[in-house]
Amino acid sequence: MKKQIITISRQCGSGGHTIGEAVARQLDIPFYDKKLLEIVAKESGFPIDVVEQQGEHVPSNLLYSIATHISYGFDYIGRKNTYSLPDQIYAFQKKLIQELAKSESCVIVGRCADYILRNNAECLHVFIYGKIEDREKRVVSEHKIAGGDAKVHILDRDKKRRQHYEYYTGQKWGAVENYNLCLDSSYYGIDICTKIIADIQNR
Amino acid sequence: MKKQIITISRQCGSGGHTIGEAVARQLDIPFYDKKLLEIVAKESGFPIDVVEQQGEHVPSNLLYSIATHISYGFDYIGRKNTYSLPDQIYAFQKKLIQELAKSESCVIVGRCADYILRNNAECLHVFIYGKIEDREKRVVSEHKIAGGDAKVHILDRDKKRRQHYEYYTGQKWGAVENYNLCLDSSYYGIDICTKIIADIQNR
Repeated sequence: MKKQIITISRQCGSGGHTIGEAVARQLDIPFYDKKLLEIVAKESGFPIDVVEQQGEHVPSNLLYSIATHISYGFDYIGRKNTYSLPDQIYAFQKKLIQELAKSESCVIVGRCADYILRNNAECLHVFIYGKIEDREKRVVSEHKIAGGDAKVHILDRDKKRRQHYEYYTGQKWGAVENYNLCLDSSYYGIDICTKIIADIQNR
Repeated sequence: MKKQIITISRQCGSGGHTIGEAVARQLDIPFYDKKLLEIVAKESGFPIDVVEQQGEHVPSNLLYSIATHISYGFDYIGRKNTYSLPDQIYAFQKKLIQELAKSESCVIVGRCADYILRNNAECLHVFIYGKIEDREKRVVSEHKIAGGDAKVHILDRDKKRRQHYEYYTGQKWGAVENYNLCLDSSYYGIDICTKIIADIQNR
């Protein structure tokens, strides 16, 4: 079977993570979401929760930048580092994603993977989105977030993902031209979205 | 078989027309592109070339508006008409698209059909796009446009479609949230795009 690399970008609550996991299972290839963060944490020396939180942020202002330089003033091999924390984590993620794509078939969720691998002809880039009311329901049932807080949570996560993506890529998050396939999980549901991605890859 | 209505919006040269035609053939349902314009021309009394040209334009300025009122100052049953020509054609198209969707399964290309039928749960709304270089090749080979003029032709058509869509719908042309499925015909090719749409409808 030829190498298959699928990147999945997704709106919060759209089921993109679940779809990515199911596609990886169907195609019997590794799935990188939390696992990618664990490798970055291990290689960089940053705690996993820092990688998780900062890895989808942007260096927002000078004060923040100074603060993160004080906390993380040295890189993982002890060199003085002048880059902001999100910049350092982005650099680790980018290198890891490029290495993964060179060595194996896999599904990668988030982390600007579509942009990092934009010139790799073996890649399929997918964007998953959905109606806000369906995303609210999914966030409430899967992430145990109270109903009233779900919309605020979704809009906040999407805003951070958009800012992070646009800061590091210079592209518009969720614009069709960055992806090969964009699927509305509200219309199709998780199983059909999985089927559309995996069946075509299996052709 | 349940009623199936598929609207296809497309970038110029993306193969959206060909894909729509092939989907309609596979599902054995009527295909409306030129045929829709012919019905509008017949019902409105406007010449077919006027319907074709003006039906994707917007009322651009006062002078234009006055000019079109002079030329077409009366509607098809002879009443004095104060709407611009694009407005009149849009109104005819809208009514026809709503009637078609009520009465039969079909594939409709362009003409803001996704917006007009946005609240119809039986509809699948598709957007077809592709890389500019592939679209240039298709326009040169299918529409007999000279290579050097292809890009200008594409950008001009897309600009007019975008303006027309945004004027009549208040939505952003090509933004994922207006469609259920967005397909990159450069990545998949015409046959696989057709298969993705038709197979899933046949499930």
